[in-house]
Amino acid sequence: MNQVGVIMGSDSDYDVMEEALEVLSQYEVSFEVIISSPQRALKRTVDWVKGFETQGGKLIIAAAGLAAHLPGVVAGATILPVIGVPMKSGALEGIDALYSIVQMPPGIPVATVGIGAARNAALLAVQILMSQDSALSFRLKDYRTTMLQDIEAKDEALQKQLSEGDCA
Amino acid sequence: MNQVGVIMGSDSDYDVMEEALEVLSQYEVSFEVIISSPQRALKRTVDWVKGFETQGGKLIIAAAGLAAHLPGVVAGATILPVIGVPMKSGALEGIDALYSIVQMPPGIPVATVGIGAARNAALLAVQILMSQDSALSFRLKDYRTTMLQDIEAKDEALQKQLSEGDCA
Amino acid sequence: MNQVGVIMGSDSDYDVMEEALEVLSQYEVSFEVIISSPQRALKRTVDWVKGFETQGGKLIIAAAGLAAHLPGVVAGATILPVIGVPMKSGALEGIDALYSIVQMPPGIPVATVGIGAARNAALLAVQILMSQDSALSFRLKDYRTTMLQDIEAKDEALQKQLSEGDCA
Amino acid sequence: MNQVGVIMGSDSDYDVMEEALEVLSQYEVSFEVIISSPQRALKRTVDWVKGFETQGGKLIIAAAGLAAHLPGVVAGATILPVIGVPMKSGALEGIDALYSIVQMPPGIPVATVGIGAARNAALLAVQILMSQDSALSFRLKDYRTTMLQDIEAKDEALQKQLSEGDCA
Amino acid sequence: MNQVGVIMGSDSDYDVMEEALEVLSQYEVSFEVIISSPQRALKRTVDWVKGFETQGGKLIIAAAGLAAHLPGVVAGATILPVIGVPMKSGALEGIDALYSIVQMPPGIPVATVGIGAARNAALLAVQILMSQDSALSFRLKDYRTTMLQDIEAKDEALQKQLSEGDCA
Amino acid sequence: MNQVGVIMGSDSDYDVMEEALEVLSQYEVSFEVIISSPQRALKRTVDWVKGFETQGGKLIIAAAGLAAHLPGVVAGATILPVIGVPMKSGALEGIDALYSIVQMPPGIPVATVGIGAARNAALLAVQILMSQDSALSFRLKDYRTTMLQDIEAKDEALQKQLSEGDCA
Amino acid sequence: MNQVGVIMGSDSDYDVMEEALEVLSQYEVSFEVIISSPQRALKRTVDWVKGFETQGGKLIIAAAGLAAHLPGVVAGATILPVIGVPMKSGALEGIDALYSIVQMPPGIPVATVGIGAARNAALLAVQILMSQDSALSFRLKDYRTTMLQDIEAKDEALQKQLSEGDCA
Amino acid sequence: MNQVGVIMGSDSDYDVMEEALEVLSQYEVSFEVIISSPQRALKRTVDWVKGFETQGGKLIIAAAGLAAHLPGVVAGATILPVIGVPMKSGALEGIDALYSIVQMPPGIPVATVGIGAARNAALLAVQILMSQDSALSFRLKDYRTTMLQDIEAKDEALQKQLSEGDCA
Repeated sequence: MNQVGVIMGSDSDYDVMEEALEVLSQYEVSFEVIISSPQRALKRTVDWVKGFETQGGKLIIAAAGLAAHLPGVVAGATILPVIGVPMKSGALEGIDALYSIVQMPPGIPVATVGIGAARNAALLAVQILMSQDSALSFRLKDYRTTMLQDIEAKDEALQKQLSEGDCA
Repeated sequence: MNQVGVIMGSDSDYDVMEEALEVLSQYEVSFEVIISSPQRALKRTVDWVKGFETQGGKLIIAAAGLAAHLPGVVAGATILPVIGVPMKSGALEGIDALYSIVQMPPGIPVATVGIGAARNAALLAVQILMSQDSALSFRLKDYRTTMLQDIEAKDEALQKQLSEGDCA
Repeated sequence: MNQVGVIMGSDSDYDVMEEALEVLSQYEVSFEVIISSPQRALKRTVDWVKGFETQGGKLIIAAAGLAAHLPGVVAGATILPVIGVPMKSGALEGIDALYSIVQMPPGIPVATVGIGAARNAALLAVQILMSQDSALSFRLKDYRTTMLQDIEAKDEALQKQLSEGDCA
Repeated sequence: MNQVGVIMGSDSDYDVMEEALEVLSQYEVSFEVIISSPQRALKRTVDWVKGFETQGGKLIIAAAGLAAHLPGVVAGATILPVIGVPMKSGALEGIDALYSIVQMPPGIPVATVGIGAARNAALLAVQILMSQDSALSFRLKDYRTTMLQDIEAKDEALQKQLSEGDCA
Repeated sequence: MNQVGVIMGSDSDYDVMEEALEVLSQYEVSFEVIISSPQRALKRTVDWVKGFETQGGKLIIAAAGLAAHLPGVVAGATILPVIGVPMKSGALEGIDALYSIVQMPPGIPVATVGIGAARNAALLAVQILMSQDSALSFRLKDYRTTMLQDIEAKDEALQKQLSEGDCA
Repeated sequence: MNQVGVIMGSDSDYDVMEEALEVLSQYEVSFEVIISSPQRALKRTVDWVKGFETQGGKLIIAAAGLAAHLPGVVAGATILPVIGVPMKSGALEGIDALYSIVQMPPGIPVATVGIGAARNAALLAVQILMSQDSALSFRLKDYRTTMLQDIEAKDEALQKQLSEGDCA
Repeated sequence: MNQVGVIMGSDSDYDVMEEALEVLSQYEVSFEVIISSPQRALKRTVDWVKGFETQGGKLIIAAAGLAAHLPGVVAGATILPVIGVPMKSGALEGIDALYSIVQMPPGIPVATVGIGAARNAALLAVQILMSQDSALSFRLKDYRTTMLQDIEAKDEALQKQLSEGDCA
Repeated sequence: MNQVGVIMGSDSDYDVMEEALEVLSQYEVSFEVIISSPQRALKRTVDWVKGFETQGGKLIIAAAGLAAHLPGVVAGATILPVIGVPMKSGALEGIDALYSIVQMPPGIPVATVGIGAARNAALLAVQILMSQDSALSFRLKDYRTTMLQDIEAKDEALQKQLSEGDCA
């Protein structure tokens, strides 16, 4: 069974969410992807969620824009942790989706990440799965080291650029 | 069969929504009320919606606060018109509910009224039902006349107050 | 007589609202369109609204941007249901229009849809007209089925893409 | 004929707008007051506006809350200057009214003051009338002097309080 | 002496404010223009304002973006009516300028128009000057007629387009 | 070792966060609590976080108001999952805290819940811990059943109230 | 000469700003206070600012609400550092003041602190003065230690409360 | 030792912050630049801050976007004055960064400038350093004069353009 289910409200969300899939692949976390909608395909959505839970899935990442009900409806249909990703779209540019996802009523939480934050959604998924898979914790620690080295490298490049007099 | 179904996400919404019921009663529109939740009681919610539609209900008023998914999920479960009422609650005081209700994705509209606007939700319901019940149109016209007379009466009271020198 | 009247505040709204007209055509709902303004052409606006109601029109869709008074003024001039469409324009990108349309005072509701949501305005109109025209309800159910199939098709396309290794 | 017409959307606006009337009285500017509504009493509103203009009124102050269409509709019905006062009410606390009043479409301006700023609306009216009535300019200059003296007096009181060691 | 003074905080505002100058020209209202700043050139700003008032100027239009203090500072330096135009610029796209202009403290009003609403600022100026110049009122009435005819023409063009089957 | 660490930026957050502790107790999840601050007590904060991780803690709940840096700084100091709770405080009433917590940069996610949503933070913690403790999943399922029964009970009470004619 | 000048737009700001004065007193930083207004008392404001600078004042703290022009106008009249404190007042509760203070045009910065953050304004003043007065740096370091001890004490109190079973 | 330390959260901030470095160079203020992150490189960040303070640095400019914790964490690690620059990035375009920087808790102020206001951050730094270096005050006064002349020059260019009939 796949560990992570990634559900998105529209195929237009794929371009952003692809980064989450890449991160999961890098961490060797198995996943499956589905496009569905709590308004246009409620039964299909709930059936998939319940099936995913029954077959041993570990957590779900749900991405949606506008009046983004998908993460909340998914969270109501399972006791698995649900990570919600508000997508930037429409005139309100994701504020609507952020409020629709994060302001869940008492009893049914959604673990919300930033607007369009597909990478962070996947990393949060890895962090949650880590307790059952110590390999993941090594990879996460490596990633932290890599991020630190990346900052140091960027800083070094900037110092070089500055010392060469590009800024005067 | 009742003409209007009124569904609310929490019994705490009742104090505000009671005004909608009073308006429906005044217009002699039959209605039923249910408390349910798309996250905590999804099947119950959808079963009621589908049953209400099957038995000949005409439209649904759905009220919810915070990440207010109820109106949108109801709208996805029926082709009846759904009127959404964003409730004022929590730190965002209803802005979250407004965005969660009005910014529905293409294909599934919700007829949204103002934050806490229970009266207007009921009046909109009457206006929608009016085409099948000419008595309602007479009552609506009467109500418009009453509102006009009410404004005239308030204006008259103010003029009297001003002429008596309360403002100087 | 036409069933739906579509009124917009500016000819620049037409590009967005054209989608509403296409939806009404697909549902074989008769409609008429008018450009008018509650500030620049108040009498013309009200005369059209009253004439439309008198001749048997069933509901009005009103679209406007900025300080979008058109839907509210139309709603005050008729007891027909009025659907309001906030248009995205100007520095506030439609938030001003949304608030100007949805926050109507008690007594005169406007059924508000999302910013720029022309398609949903037309679908809501069809849902409201449905009770007097059972053919519409069949078409709406078909549309729901089509939306579901569309999601399934998009999902299938994505699965195919993923299985072909586009995401690695 | 009265110089200033003050129109408000609801008698509940009177408590705030009374301050405007007091200012007009202090400046010996004649005024009349009316409660009316562009949605609930459109003809009455427009008739009053047109009558006020015809009889020689000089400008109109219009106050409204929520989806505050009153100032804009009044402005469309007259070429007199219209001063709009957004009232604080409802869940959005006047932001809706501010946007509904200030974001008028091209061609029909409303001179907008701050949320609940009844005093400033009246002072702006006096400033506009001043060019035809030199007595008003003297009074306005006096008021500026008074405001300055008021600040000086408050400052003096504070200095006294501080020197007496209230703050240590 | 010129009737209207137009002051703007930056030469980058000119592209938008040029429309105000064109409107004033069309109405044969004399005007002068100045670029100044209440922070970078306070004395220059105040000297111009006071000189403009002394020499018989009638009102001032002040445009500024960001923390738009210019209209308020100008209003504090004169008893002439001051029309404020919030400019769209920077990350907040004019919301900052709108709040900085419209939310003036009690005593010193600024007649605020919409974000970037140069045309409306000029029209409001003409409406204010009208009481001393009856020619202006004729031109304003003509303009209202022109706006109405413009709407009718646009509507006619749309009807023609629709009847020719452009929308199907 | 305790499973959950609860860190809050101020003792004034305790009144709200106490509900999270009660939920954890009900689920028999061991926890410890600490008051610390990333600005006023950075080393203390980081030492506690690192110690908690080293000793086998499973996840951290971090609550903060205003410029709520605590959850993000904690998340940077550990690879354990961090749940962030924006607290309602100050003039912005929690919007500042929400943005400061949810909009984390790429690489370091915080699982954000709603403003003041202490209960949901604790439930999310239980859901995350569930995969290592099957007893928790039984309790979570029970809780879902309880919530459903609670809604049914509230609905029943409302039906009784309505049938007794409290609303007419 | 006093080191810090504290200017506020209204005596109603004193209740909040008093905390700043107390902090300055604790740090033995000399200060003077003045109530003035850039709109109602521009010359008085500027004269005080220029006099304060001429006589050797080191920096200015300026507090204002609504369209808070005071800090920016003060900053334009001096090259001393100016700390701006947005005050919470009116319908917008300080958002207007925050934007009016922080979004200064290029060339004239204002060092802005949080809404109503009088204490932080004074501490920032002390930090700026510190480079000329090493005693201040010792006091600031003491204060940091005190804040840390305060957190530790509050934490200890909470641990005691928890261990005594107040939370179960 | 350098007088000013400039720290930014990402190398993508450099394009905007370069303007700050240019201003510091023009004023002959020595500076150093570092890219670091309070989440991804906390120890590195704090070590640099403490080292910079120890070696006699005078103040720090910190720029960050999104959940911009960098300025606040830096401010907590030093008693030097910290100037925070909210960067425009992501869906919220800098509002998130502004709130995350300016709304600091009591005890640890950050001197916040406008969104993307790199130039103003540097000028504020110069103003703060001025008290120890009278040469800076001369340069600042020159800059004020230059800004005034720049406005006069722009105004002159506009007057010339207008007199040549470009606006008619």
